[in-house]
Amino acid sequence: MKREFEFIESIRKQTPTNSPNLELGIGDDAAIFKASSDQEFLITTDLLTEHIHFELDYTPANLLGYKALAVNLSDIAAMGGKPQYFLLSLARPRSLSDKYLEEMIVGMQALAQEYQVTLIGGDTCASHTDLTINITVIGQIATGQAVRRSRAQIGEAIYVSGRLGASALGLQYLQAGQRVITSSDLWAFTWPEERTIAQALRAHLQPQPRLALGQFLATHHLASAMLDISDGLAGDLAHICTESQVGAEIYAERLPIAAGASLKDALSGGEDYELLFTVPANQVARIAEVQAAFPELAITQIGQIVAQGYWLIVDGQRQVLEPQGYDHFSAK
Amino acid sequence: MKREFEFIESIRKQTPTNSPNLELGIGDDAAIFKASSDQEFLITTDLLTEHIHFELDYTPANLLGYKALAVNLSDIAAMGGKPQYFLLSLARPRSLSDKYLEEMIVGMQALAQEYQVTLIGGDTCASHTDLTINITVIGQIATGQAVRRSRAQIGEAIYVSGRLGASALGLQYLQAGQRVITSSDLWAFTWPEERTIAQALRAHLQPQPRLALGQFLATHHLASAMLDISDGLAGDLAHICTESQVGAEIYAERLPIAAGASLKDALSGGEDYELLFTVPANQVARIAEVQAAFPELAITQIGQIVAQGYWLIVDGQRQVLEPQGYDHFSAK
Repeated sequence: MKREFEFIESIRKQTPTNSPNLELGIGDDAAIFKASSDQEFLITTDLLTEHIHFELDYTPANLLGYKALAVNLSDIAAMGGKPQYFLLSLARPRSLSDKYLEEMIVGMQALAQEYQVTLIGGDTCASHTDLTINITVIGQIATGQAVRRSRAQIGEAIYVSGRLGASALGLQYLQAGQRVITSSDLWAFTWPEERTIAQALRAHLQPQPRLALGQFLATHHLASAMLDISDGLAGDLAHICTESQVGAEIYAERLPIAAGASLKDALSGGEDYELLFTVPANQVARIAEVQAAFPELAITQIGQIVAQGYWLIVDGQRQVLEPQGYDHFSAK
Repeated sequence: MKREFEFIESIRKQTPTNSPNLELGIGDDAAIFKASSDQEFLITTDLLTEHIHFELDYTPANLLGYKALAVNLSDIAAMGGKPQYFLLSLARPRSLSDKYLEEMIVGMQALAQEYQVTLIGGDTCASHTDLTINITVIGQIATGQAVRRSRAQIGEAIYVSGRLGASALGLQYLQAGQRVITSSDLWAFTWPEERTIAQALRAHLQPQPRLALGQFLATHHLASAMLDISDGLAGDLAHICTESQVGAEIYAERLPIAAGASLKDALSGGEDYELLFTVPANQVARIAEVQAAFPELAITQIGQIVAQGYWLIVDGQRQVLEPQGYDHFSAK
């Protein structure tokens, strides 16, 4: 079986790119097309399938709805845009109760309301087996301001928001039998170890799309390239490098690893939905302004863009960083 | 289990409609949002799932790709718009060969090229069981020109394009064991009965989105309300009546029933993807211009909009026409 990447590349090669008003097609977090002379639209789509992206037995309905929309909003955040509309497609197994479905919509609409994103259409059908959710989000951005993956340059600093590996740790807790009955459980903790567990579960079940940060970076022209970490830092950094035709080196000891998570969780766990971005050397001093604007969110420099190669520096020693790209086609 | 219609209505009621730049949200063939002062965007999405919408054993790969895009283009046709871009999400079972997947994309891209629609993004993942395809299409239309479902008025004439029931007949042939190996089989026939079979198979496997007709009707302001027939004439006419708060009566003997199809196939077979539209009395004479512009496509007046009720006239006798709306949630 072809890998997902090869399949997408073969489609990309077959696809014309000379469409009028199209600014950016396949290959980034979202496509860009012109709205008017001063505005552009961003559009992105994500498919979530039962047993691949989630299990119903450990996912409260409202958090499934929340997360399905959040991962799409995260793609708009990664371009620096403001989400406006979304469409929802559902394939519903007969075994799924009305109650679960309704609570899922409530969770989705709560997040939509938080970011003033409006549901404007969709499609519903039956499924013989699994629950499948597809969401498409349309966002807006000032012309030319969208931050692409392809514009990182040699010598630029690499930054990441938040803490990495928490989502992978949360998934491990869920797979080991930890359960969340209602979303308020995610905030109920007394002892430090409970707090670690709750943070990890929140990261996995209720990821925060970094919309305000993405918009701040785009508006102030601070990021030259950006994406959201969905497949894991190592794999996603490789996407920036491939699209920008550069290399990268990152320092293991600088990685903002979440409490309880391992280096492996942070590098290849995936689903953190934090922003990974590059900053030109003459803008690095201004990252203090970003940190001041987002005091509760760690903004960490983890490495720099180099001419070629793909390196992890551990105790001053360079080792090859395996992209470990998550191949969705071969996911179990 | 709630019916699909009730579920969608409950979502619609929860959804704000006061978003800036949003012209039309949930409930029509496509949503409408402003691009600039003179242009609007249309957006629609459709989810196709194996065993619900298609079976791999009777669907050549290129025709599956073709149809998945065609049914979405048909929604843009039903608003009178011009499609521009599309996004493709795929959940791929491991059992599906690279060859099938690649041929599916070839068929989809061939249709995209025919209508100059460009693939600009998507998502791919594995599936434990069924092949699922979600497509989102973005189209454009001059401001105010989109033809909605909700503007049919009492006394207007009801028209339909093409012939009805052919797709349902084609499905019956496929379910009875008729097979199409390559798409050229759909055009290979010698005897009249073979021609009937081939036409029915074409209608089911390779439906034509009526884009040129939809654009003609919208540009010339001839249609007051319009949709494409996906669930069957009876069910879809009911959508126009519900949204427009009117009734309708249609004449059984005027229905353009496809060769070999039954009245039931024509009324409730579904998937014909012909356009159903209403025409104000003072514009009816101009339908001759439409017929002249589309000489190979039957344009047939089948009834009229009335104040209330929902009627089929057979041999001069009025009988209640059951909407027979196709409930996708309870589909086998």
